[in-house]
Order: sequence, then C-alpha cells, then structure tokens
Amino acid sequence: MDKVAFLGGGSFGTALATVIANKGYNVNFWLRNEKIAQEINQNRTNEKYLKGVKIPTNVKATCDLKEALTEVKYIVLTIPSSSIRNVCEQIKEYINEESVIISLAKGIEDGTNLRLSEVIEQVLDKKPVVLSGPSHAEEVAALIPTTIVSSSKDMKLAEEVQELFMTPTLRIYTNEDLIGVEVGGAVKNIIAVAAGILDGIGYGDNTKAALMTRGMKEISRVGIKLGGKEETFYGLTGMGDLIVTCTSMHSRNRKAGILFGKGKKLDEVLKEVGMVVEGVKACHAFYTLKESLGVSMPITDVLYKFIFEEKNPIKAIEELMQRDKKSESY
Amino acid sequence: MDKVAFLGGGSFGTALATVIANKGYNVNFWLRNEKIAQEINQNRTNEKYLKGVKIPTNVKATCDLKEALTEVKYIVLTIPSSSIRNVCEQIKEYINEESVIISLAKGIEDGTNLRLSEVIEQVLDKKPVVLSGPSHAEEVAALIPTTIVSSSKDMKLAEEVQELFMTPTLRIYTNEDLIGVEVGGAVKNIIAVAAGILDGIGYGDNTKAALMTRGMKEISRVGIKLGGKEETFYGLTGMGDLIVTCTSMHSRNRKAGILFGKGKKLDEVLKEVGMVVEGVKACHAFYTLKESLGVSMPITDVLYKFIFEEKNPIKAIEELMQRDKKSESY
Repeated sequence: MDKVAFLGGGSFGTALATVIANKGYNVNFWLRNEKIAQEINQNRTNEKYLKGVKIPTNVKATCDLKEALTEVKYIVLTIPSSSIRNVCEQIKEYINEESVIISLAKGIEDGTNLRLSEVIEQVLDKKPVVLSGPSHAEEVAALIPTTIVSSSKDMKLAEEVQELFMTPTLRIYTNEDLIGVEVGGAVKNIIAVAAGILDGIGYGDNTKAALMTRGMKEISRVGIKLGGKEETFYGLTGMGDLIVTCTSMHSRNRKAGILFGKGKKLDEVLKEVGMVVEGVKACHAFYTLKESLGVSMPITDVLYKFIFEEKNPIKAIEELMQRDKKSESY
Repeated sequence: MDKVAFLGGGSFGTALATVIANKGYNVNFWLRNEKIAQEINQNRTNEKYLKGVKIPTNVKATCDLKEALTEVKYIVLTIPSSSIRNVCEQIKEYINEESVIISLAKGIEDGTNLRLSEVIEQVLDKKPVVLSGPSHAEEVAALIPTTIVSSSKDMKLAEEVQELFMTPTLRIYTNEDLIGVEVGGAVKNIIAVAAGILDGIGYGDNTKAALMTRGMKEISRVGIKLGGKEETFYGLTGMGDLIVTCTSMHSRNRKAGILFGKGKKLDEVLKEVGMVVEGVKACHAFYTLKESLGVSMPITDVLYKFIFEEKNPIKAIEELMQRDKKSESY
C-alpha cells in the first residue's frame, strides 16, 4: 500500500489522517509544533485541534520534512492558504514523478490573486488534486456521513484520490470544474464571517437566511467571472459548504464573525479563535480582486470596511439588508 | 386607512397581524377557537401560537366570519393548505370587487395537485397575492430583520401588498414568478422534514448540508418542470426559506423530522408538534405528482416510504447518502 503524508497539524488534516490510517495506509504526519508531534506519537491525541479523537498507531508524527516525505506517494497539504507557497517551496526537493499533491486549503493567494492549485502548480510543476465540500473535521472523525468533492485539471488523478479517501461514511464525488470548486470554497468563508456577525449581534435565522441567499449570488457572480460553472457553486463545494460553514457550531469563520458581532476587534478575534480564519484573508484578497474583475460583491465590501476600516457592524449590516431595491432579482 | 382581515389564528398570522396593526391598520382577526379569540381580545396574547408577543389593541379577534370581513379590503389567508378551498368557499359571499386576497399558505392541494393560488382563483375568481420567504413568525414579531417576497399574476396587486406590509425590519421584494415562488415554498418543507430526521438520528451538519444541497436540486428540478424559473428557486422563497426551515429551532417541519428520526410514528409526531406539518402533506402530494410529471424526487421518495410505509429511516437515509454515483452532477 502506498504511503501518505499529511503536512500541517490542524483539525481537518488530523481527521483525514485518522480516516486514511484506519483504511490501512501508513501515514506520516508532518507538523511544526514538537509538543503536538510528541502528543500524537505518545498519547495518540491532538487535543488542541481535534479533541477526543484517538489517532491510530500507523500515523507517525514528525517535525522533519525530509523524513515525512521519504517513500511517500500521496502528499496532502492541510495548511492555511497563506503557507501554501512557502511549504511547496520547501517540499520541492523531496518530490518525484510519482508524487501526487492533494490540497485541502481554501482561499486565493493574497497579492497574486492566484487560486491555490495555481500556486502549487507554479512552484511544483504538478497538477494537484483539490478536496473540498461540507466537511467539518470533528464530524469526519466521528464517522458522521460526509460528502467531499475531488477535482483536478487531471481527472485521472482526481479519481485516484477519490478511491484513496472513500469510506462507507466519507463519500467522495468528482467534479471537473476545478475553478468552480476552488472559488466557491474560498468565497463561502467570507459569507460565513458575515453570517457569524449577524449571530453575534443577535439577529435571527430569518436575517441570516437572507444573507446566505444573497451570499450565494455573490459567490456565483464572482465565480462565473473567474471561469467557474454556475452548477458547481450550487453544489456541495459551494452551497453545501456555505450552509455548513454559516450554521455549524464547528465553523471558525462563523465563530470569528460572532466575536466581531459582539464588538471585538480583529486582533482580539484572531487571538480568541486561535486558528487561521480563512474568511478574513479571503475578504482581503477578494476586495482587491473584485475591482479588477469589475464584479459587484456587496457582502465582501461591507465586511472589508467593517474588519479593516472598523466601520460599525450594525450600521453596515443594516445597509446591506435595507438596500432600496424592490424586486428580488439582484 | 383600509381595514385588513386575517383568517386563521396561527403563528405567522398572529405575527403579521401585529406588524400591520402597529403600522396603524385596524385588523379583524378571524379564528375558530373561541378561547384564543377571547385571550387575544382580553389579554392581548396568543400564548399557544406566539408566546410572549403583545398584540396591539387595534387587532380585534372574532369567530364570526361575516363580522371579520365587513368593510375590509385586504383579506389575508393564514390557514393550512388543506383548509384553503373550504375557507374560500365560506368567504365567497362576503368579498367584492375591491377585495384583495393575500395567501401565506404553502403547499399544493392534495388530490387536485393545484397550487394554492390556483385553488383560490378557481373558487373566488380573484388573482391572489402570495407572500413567501424565510420568515419565522417568532422573529418577525420580535422585529428581527426579515425578507419576504410578494408575488401574483397581477403584479400591480403584488406591489400594493408590498407597500402594505413593508416596515424598516420587514423588507418585501416582488417577484413575477408566481409558480416558482409557490412550488419552492411547498417542496422545501419536504426537504426540511428529511433534514430534521437526520438531526433526530444524530447525524451532523456535514450530512445535513449534503442533503440540503441535493434538496435544492430536487426543488428546482420539479419546479422548472412545473413552469417555475430556476433563479426563483435559488432566491429567498426557495433556498432562503429552505435554509431557515432546515436549520432553525422555530421550524415545525424540522421539529416533526426530529421526532420521526427519534423513532416516533406519524400520529405521535403530529400530536406532539400540535400544529399542521405542511412538509408531510406536501410529501404525500408530490409523491403522486412527480409520477405524472416524470421527474425524479429521491428525497421525497425516501421520505414518503418512511412516513407512509414505515420503512426504517436510517436505512432509507443511508440509501440516499450512499448512492453509487461517482460524479457530482445529479
């Protein structure tokens, strides 16, 4: 059986490493934090990122990248979007023709506005496989039925990765629309932060549902402009992931929004969430990208002004809800 | 100022009657239950259906239909879908050319498979205005920002009703696609019962998001076949209402599903919810309708077999989740 390496010690990586290891694959788990590596190897837990989950003994944690990648075929990147380029540059010398790169990161690269698969291909000269969908790590690890989409420029690879991860409770579907999969996964995090703000202020389900419905339009509008297909945005990686991210207790983008809604500032929010909040990064990236695309993103606008220019959230959200339009098409 | 009558003493009617009365309109509130009528007139509350809300003094409850409709221009039907025909027949003698009929009911008529606006038009020879959208009564009454869509064959009337109900926290949008508005509002209740079953069994947010995503496809598939527009299904009355109904604590369709998921039978569920569960009725109606339309409705199928043929819900849902398809398009 081929070996699999997971790079990055976060929640989703830990959950999928556990799933793969339980299928019988030997997993090398590379992470920067030595204490957590030790905890995984000795206690078989990763309490900070995935409380209460027992990690199988065929998962070996290490802080040595060379060791992690030795004789490994599948390399799964479960790192924040902002680390993708840097980590790819580090692993370049250890990969070969056989290596398959799989990315779980969601976002676009701030500054270049490249999709993360483009960053990976640029640095490694490999067509990566992207996994995305409504899949909170806690539930994947608890074997709650979950669906994920596998996409790539090279659909043969996407199908290979589909087989690799498929279990009775983890259903992997393929989708050829890589652009749609990546853009939907990135923009939905922006909407989730905004939805969390509504929750934090104390607005109800009616308000949030209206915001999410408009958010879907925002996702598909910018996504189609970037070359994605509309049906992808209304599928698992768009609408499905939007729903889970906006409504689940497990979502850190939503959690960040709730803290914003309660009046906390950016640095306090990031400190309290304690993990990367991709929606905040995506908001920053798409705020500049939308200008060059000439596409309207009203929720992203309001969120940007609120987070980075400290505009009053209630006023900002109310503006958004009370636009003067009279007909539903927007 | 024109007088408004609300027919039906449920949650949503009580909430909207309160909103309208607070705008200064005199409201006649017709309901069958004398005790509740007395409670409204004396205590200014309707504790069974809308706990904790103070009903203004310009709302007058009565059990006398003739009294309720005397010198009234706007007649708002806030009754279950199964009572629409019967109530329309009762009010026929009291309406005139000026009367505007507004319907809040969601569903299609069992047996005839007519949309409720068609039933109303058939009996009263009037083009009604339909209001629909993500709008739990409890939140509307609590002045939480809410969006609703106003639709009719006669868009002038739809705009008149938009003005009638519009407040700073209740935003009314118009939509010309009456078929799309009505079908979306009916089918989403089926999906919400199924989503509730997942919650009742103990599945997580990942599973439910996947079901809702597939549910959206089911809504739009049958809705387009019936003559609705795709964009309507992905708007407030389709996706927006689906989200709120599948995720909110306030939804009785979801609540019914949760009870089903915990193993209760139909009669126990209806007794415990204590109000009409439109999703159960819609499931029955669409199960026969889909055959004649030749359209696939897998979630409706599973739900029908479970509710009316007492098939094991876990097996049924698992079948649904684990279909053999490998690509995301379905």
